[in-house]
Amino acid sequence: MSAIEKQIPFKTYLEESEMPKAWYNLRADMKNKPAPLLNPGTLQPMTAEELAGVFCDDLIAQELDNTTPFFEIPEEIRTMYKMYRPSPLCRAYRLEEALGTPAKIYYKFEGNNTSGSHKLNSALAQAYYAKKQGLKGVTTETGAGQWGTALSMACAFFGLDCKVYMVKVSYEQKPFRREVMRTYGAEVTPSPSMTTQVGQKILAEHPGTTGSLGCAISEAVEAAVTREGYRYVLGSVLNQVLLHQSVIGLETKAALDKLGVKADMIIGCAGGGSNLGGLIAPFMGEKLRGEADYRIIAVEPASCPSFTRGVYAYDFCDTGMVCPLAKMYTLGSDFIPAPNHAGGLRYHGMSPILSQLYDDGLIEAVSVPQTRVFEAAEMFARTEGILPAPESSHAIRTAIDEALKCKETGEAKNIVFGLTGTGYFDMVAYEKFHDGQMDDYIPTDEELAVYRAKLPKVEA
Amino acid sequence: MSAIEKQIPFKTYLEESEMPKAWYNLRADMKNKPAPLLNPGTLQPMTAEELAGVFCDDLIAQELDNTTPFFEIPEEIRTMYKMYRPSPLCRAYRLEEALGTPAKIYYKFEGNNTSGSHKLNSALAQAYYAKKQGLKGVTTETGAGQWGTALSMACAFFGLDCKVYMVKVSYEQKPFRREVMRTYGAEVTPSPSMTTQVGQKILAEHPGTTGSLGCAISEAVEAAVTREGYRYVLGSVLNQVLLHQSVIGLETKAALDKLGVKADMIIGCAGGGSNLGGLIAPFMGEKLRGEADYRIIAVEPASCPSFTRGVYAYDFCDTGMVCPLAKMYTLGSDFIPAPNHAGGLRYHGMSPILSQLYDDGLIEAVSVPQTRVFEAAEMFARTEGILPAPESSHAIRTAIDEALKCKETGEAKNIVFGLTGTGYFDMVAYEKFHDGQMDDYIPTDEELAVYRAKLPKVEA
Repeated sequence: MSAIEKQIPFKTYLEESEMPKAWYNLRADMKNKPAPLLNPGTLQPMTAEELAGVFCDDLIAQELDNTTPFFEIPEEIRTMYKMYRPSPLCRAYRLEEALGTPAKIYYKFEGNNTSGSHKLNSALAQAYYAKKQGLKGVTTETGAGQWGTALSMACAFFGLDCKVYMVKVSYEQKPFRREVMRTYGAEVTPSPSMTTQVGQKILAEHPGTTGSLGCAISEAVEAAVTREGYRYVLGSVLNQVLLHQSVIGLETKAALDKLGVKADMIIGCAGGGSNLGGLIAPFMGEKLRGEADYRIIAVEPASCPSFTRGVYAYDFCDTGMVCPLAKMYTLGSDFIPAPNHAGGLRYHGMSPILSQLYDDGLIEAVSVPQTRVFEAAEMFARTEGILPAPESSHAIRTAIDEALKCKETGEAKNIVFGLTGTGYFDMVAYEKFHDGQMDDYIPTDEELAVYRAKLPKVEA
Repeated sequence: MSAIEKQIPFKTYLEESEMPKAWYNLRADMKNKPAPLLNPGTLQPMTAEELAGVFCDDLIAQELDNTTPFFEIPEEIRTMYKMYRPSPLCRAYRLEEALGTPAKIYYKFEGNNTSGSHKLNSALAQAYYAKKQGLKGVTTETGAGQWGTALSMACAFFGLDCKVYMVKVSYEQKPFRREVMRTYGAEVTPSPSMTTQVGQKILAEHPGTTGSLGCAISEAVEAAVTREGYRYVLGSVLNQVLLHQSVIGLETKAALDKLGVKADMIIGCAGGGSNLGGLIAPFMGEKLRGEADYRIIAVEPASCPSFTRGVYAYDFCDTGMVCPLAKMYTLGSDFIPAPNHAGGLRYHGMSPILSQLYDDGLIEAVSVPQTRVFEAAEMFARTEGILPAPESSHAIRTAIDEALKCKETGEAKNIVFGLTGTGYFDMVAYEKFHDGQMDDYIPTDEELAVYRAKLPKVEA
């Protein structure tokens, strides 16, 4: 057991007084703003009025604002943040030692709350604004259940009703997630259900269906717009979500500054972009303003490669095509990764903000096959202790790969990555990995072309 | 949403430099020492030589030492502790507000590590000493899996082989726990198994048995003593375990001192006593030395009431009767709580140290029925966010009851309790509670008398 360098703590916590008091709106510093959401009927930018039936008023203002650099975090939300934040910035001493790398590896760990991920940062904000508007409740969809759990917690804290449409196959196969949501008082309905018209229609057409995220979104939207005092909320992709998640990056930067550490690269996993967009926000801000430079690396699964093999185009956000069109790197709204893909990050598109930054060459992207992701996850668990979520493990994989490059070159780079959450509810995926039943499906060019051909025809 | 008092942070973390450098051995300050373990054959105190085939040498020294007040924590263990410690001392502002109590409620949260509980504190120590002795590996048993998970992690960190005998019914019903252990490289065997003679014998006699903790202990002990380079380790009850767990209390006291808060009462759940013994250690030390006074309250399930309805007598530590005799508050080694008891803390006896302190009137004990425990758990989850383990929720129940007494009297007492872990793997129990399928079995006096009559006849 060798001695380990200890000048920098294993975990750095900010004081509560040092926690961010405002979210940072990256769009204010972007020269090329993200493209606006379009009304799918008129192909004109969605107005606040059009969005008001679906989203809360304050959240719409945040969604549409490309110029205000900071939004004050209301005190009530800051109080809630203090229940599980600041999250620690961890130095991965034992992982570094196991790799034999001169690189210094840091990770921002967002899993120390019952939702098990960073999703709670935006759930609290969205629930707060719903309460402030005097609403009775909110609706949403959930697949694996992280977002649904986070929203259930947030609604319990603010005294809001919470209706979650959970993809039926997950509802049945992940009863524990469902029970966590019930513990926080949420009503969890397997989707498709007979509680909505769209659900009834789908069940009539496909009686044995086990559901999909697209269908659950459609049901959740219908449940919101047909009820007095309800709105629909979403856990990723949207500009407002990235705004709320900037608390991750702001805390990360404050802790690094306190330690006197300058990051060389920032690595985050990317599904819809909520974590990556939040983590990189203040770093990208410096980069956009020419104050500093960083490598920013998005990591996605090889089975769902929106950045690395998608196209930058207007597309539907949901497979049900009920939501506005968004310009983003996309594989096509019908694209669904192979069922044997256990590593999460299954969304067909990518946040419009991150898509614009990627198109402008300000972000790199890599895709990784899932067995290599789980190898990294297991190595991380055995060295750093934390059992990572499969999603988060994409970032671990690339952080390890970059650290091994440093071993080749002898460079002591500062690698920072986002560890978005824990894998306690993902043990079926780990079991597949342990039993050698995990494969590395990668879609062919021909497959991707089929979905790409179905993209809506919209002039940018 | 009312304003909340904020002079004291929601969470207080010690600096790494403020973490304890030595464990505190409560026995050194006890006037009446805990009774020694007895050899079941000779009824004489077990010697270090007799214990050496089963336990590691350094751990035997700790087990038998009633006089040394402090044991230095080896630097390697302190390094490992820094991966998940210091754990936060939390102020339960939102719970206080929901209760409308003038009491101030604090809890020490030990669940922010992958084992999900405080068990890792002793697992790391025991694995370290096994490694130091040059052993190849360790064996243990696990029921619900918290201890097995903690030991698997510790063995992964120190490069030791880990063989876990998991009660068969848990192995089959809790596959996720099993997979977590496998992620850390442990070999997990459902017990009873064909890998030991005792397992073969039990399977021959009871072909369909789903196992018991007593049987798993017997298999784990046999697996250790019949293998070159292996020893057996245990996660509770023993003096050495309480010594290691004193890190909980030492951190708690240091944080309270830093905040300028004097506890009025310390509340902990009690199964075998590992958490309670660790949490109260420095407070009880002050009490024993006459430096301060505290109410110390042990909380146990009404279905397994070792303190409140057991007797103080020598008894076997395991149902298989292969281990030494210990003098403790016990219900009899054959006693097993009803299968519908979902709240954990199922052990028939209690740590000899805590038993002596209770017999000396230095600890109070209360027992609580499980539906009231889960009501407290749900209230805690909805106010404080953390989803508590059923075991930990016993302490929550009593903390709430004490806070409500303060509401009656108007006293602003400082209530401190131990939140030992999280309930992510206990959702079946929560589901029973949500579905109204939980009942409050309490053993009758007649039932308890049956087990009591079987206690070994040993003159104290």
